[in-house]
Amino acid sequence: MARAGTQNADLAERLLAGDKRALARAISLVEDDDPQGWALVREVYPHTGKAAIVGFTGPPGVGKSTLIGALTAHARQADRGVAVLSIDPSSPFTKGALLGDRIRLTDHFLDSGVFIRSMATRGSLGGLSEATLQAALLMDASGKDDVFLETVGVGQAEVDIIDHADTVVLVLMPGSGDSIQALKAGVMEIPDVIAVNKSDHPLTDTMIREIRGVLSLGPPEEWQVPIVKTEASRAEGVEELQQQIAAHREHIESKGSLVERRRRNLMNEVVALAAGRLRRRLERSIQEDSGVQELLDEVVARRLDPASAASQLLERDL
Amino acid sequence: MARAGTQNADLAERLLAGDKRALARAISLVEDDDPQGWALVREVYPHTGKAAIVGFTGPPGVGKSTLIGALTAHARQADRGVAVLSIDPSSPFTKGALLGDRIRLTDHFLDSGVFIRSMATRGSLGGLSEATLQAALLMDASGKDDVFLETVGVGQAEVDIIDHADTVVLVLMPGSGDSIQALKAGVMEIPDVIAVNKSDHPLTDTMIREIRGVLSLGPPEEWQVPIVKTEASRAEGVEELQQQIAAHREHIESKGSLVERRRRNLMNEVVALAAGRLRRRLERSIQEDSGVQELLDEVVARRLDPASAASQLLERDL
Repeated sequence: MARAGTQNADLAERLLAGDKRALARAISLVEDDDPQGWALVREVYPHTGKAAIVGFTGPPGVGKSTLIGALTAHARQADRGVAVLSIDPSSPFTKGALLGDRIRLTDHFLDSGVFIRSMATRGSLGGLSEATLQAALLMDASGKDDVFLETVGVGQAEVDIIDHADTVVLVLMPGSGDSIQALKAGVMEIPDVIAVNKSDHPLTDTMIREIRGVLSLGPPEEWQVPIVKTEASRAEGVEELQQQIAAHREHIESKGSLVERRRRNLMNEVVALAAGRLRRRLERSIQEDSGVQELLDEVVARRLDPASAASQLLERDL
Repeated sequence: MARAGTQNADLAERLLAGDKRALARAISLVEDDDPQGWALVREVYPHTGKAAIVGFTGPPGVGKSTLIGALTAHARQADRGVAVLSIDPSSPFTKGALLGDRIRLTDHFLDSGVFIRSMATRGSLGGLSEATLQAALLMDASGKDDVFLETVGVGQAEVDIIDHADTVVLVLMPGSGDSIQALKAGVMEIPDVIAVNKSDHPLTDTMIREIRGVLSLGPPEEWQVPIVKTEASRAEGVEELQQQIAAHREHIESKGSLVERRRRNLMNEVVALAAGRLRRRLERSIQEDSGVQELLDEVVARRLDPASAASQLLERDL
């Protein structure tokens, strides 16, 4: 125990000093739901809050990783430390397609100022959103100037994962009709910046007009969502995207809304962490408790309704 | 209290007899999180399990409502009772577009064999998935042969809502590239039936080939997911879609997987109901308990990390 404590203190020190291997080790601990990982986050938490956290969301295949790779190169030119956290969907069959995309990031693997990590969406013991937050905090504590979070998805759940971000970038490409409809219908929240990647496609301008049309339907906001054309594989438009992300940050800093946003995010995170733990306790009780099994059998036999079973579960379990 | 009991018994009786107004009233009770509503579901639950529950998901604007309207007309010709439950996203600005789509269903408003209801995705006190399940059970108990659940969305969260369904139909249209990518990446689960609506579009066949390509990447399954071309506004392809839905039902019935699927769904629902209630208790405690407020202030001030705050919240609250 004393030894673990010492190791942890060591790890925290190395992490705070910006040691890449210490950061990697710390994230693994968090991902494995190891109590040492939680202790470490607790220890370094007072040193967080300095990084600019940018979340990237959008459907698979639009080139988010390539874009993040290009933004990383750009940040490195300005001598900023960068950490990238990619949330990988655990596909039942086509891992390859996404990994192929990710390869673009390997250009930066040897750069000591860049840290890259991906996490799987399922199988993470402690819940993914939880692990994402902890990993982002560790990256922040290790002194990175920019933390890029990437989720692959098209629904609200994916947007929730990057709710830890100060700035949310939605990446689309010509053909992303479903996402535009989702924005229009209010199924997906309006992001802070929109990038239209693969913009050498002939339908790019039509799509940008469509997006502008959707945005114009909303109530007038102080921040006008910029739409940036990019061609990430040739690094085109990356500088403008970087400028718009920086402009958004300046905007929320000057309006005081960065503080407000972080406050709201942190509150949501605490609730989500607590709720997630409660849920896992419940799931465990279902697997382990034969009384709970009997309760569920009654539901399946249509003798006890699901809501009453839930009430009885809450009474016995907690 | 005695009077409420009598009213409830009355309502249950009328509901079980198939009275449309009783069903409408019962769903309102559930939607308002009224204890009478929960009591009612408890009472009629033994009479559920007879309806074929079909869930429809897919991006907004693909014509799900029109398709459901056409399927409803088809079911009525076979003298089947139909209930439709549409889960409406509460859009910040463009309610109109979706309601316009929904109007197609009004053809059936005067038919006593058809019951149509929509519920909003936010603002529902008891949580949407919860209310959806209860409403679907009430529809089932009221003797409807077919219960159609409709969600508007493109992510896993929407698919979860229709997890109450025996058969899941994904509706796409030419241009639904994001959804196909999401299927390919495993971000969205493979549905039981796919309908490609608005199929008079020249790119329909290309899209169907793309979908087949995605499906062929998966492991071989006993059930081959059929892809049906529809043009709902002209009722084209609707009969084939209905046949494929029926074929899927026959398949799961003959294999015994209907029972298995319902068992799994009911278990998930009990856990979701219990977890949802715990989460709401937590959220209430945050609003009402000044001690919790102080805890959160510590987090915002970076003195207490989110995970430790969650632990402390769980200790004090439950």
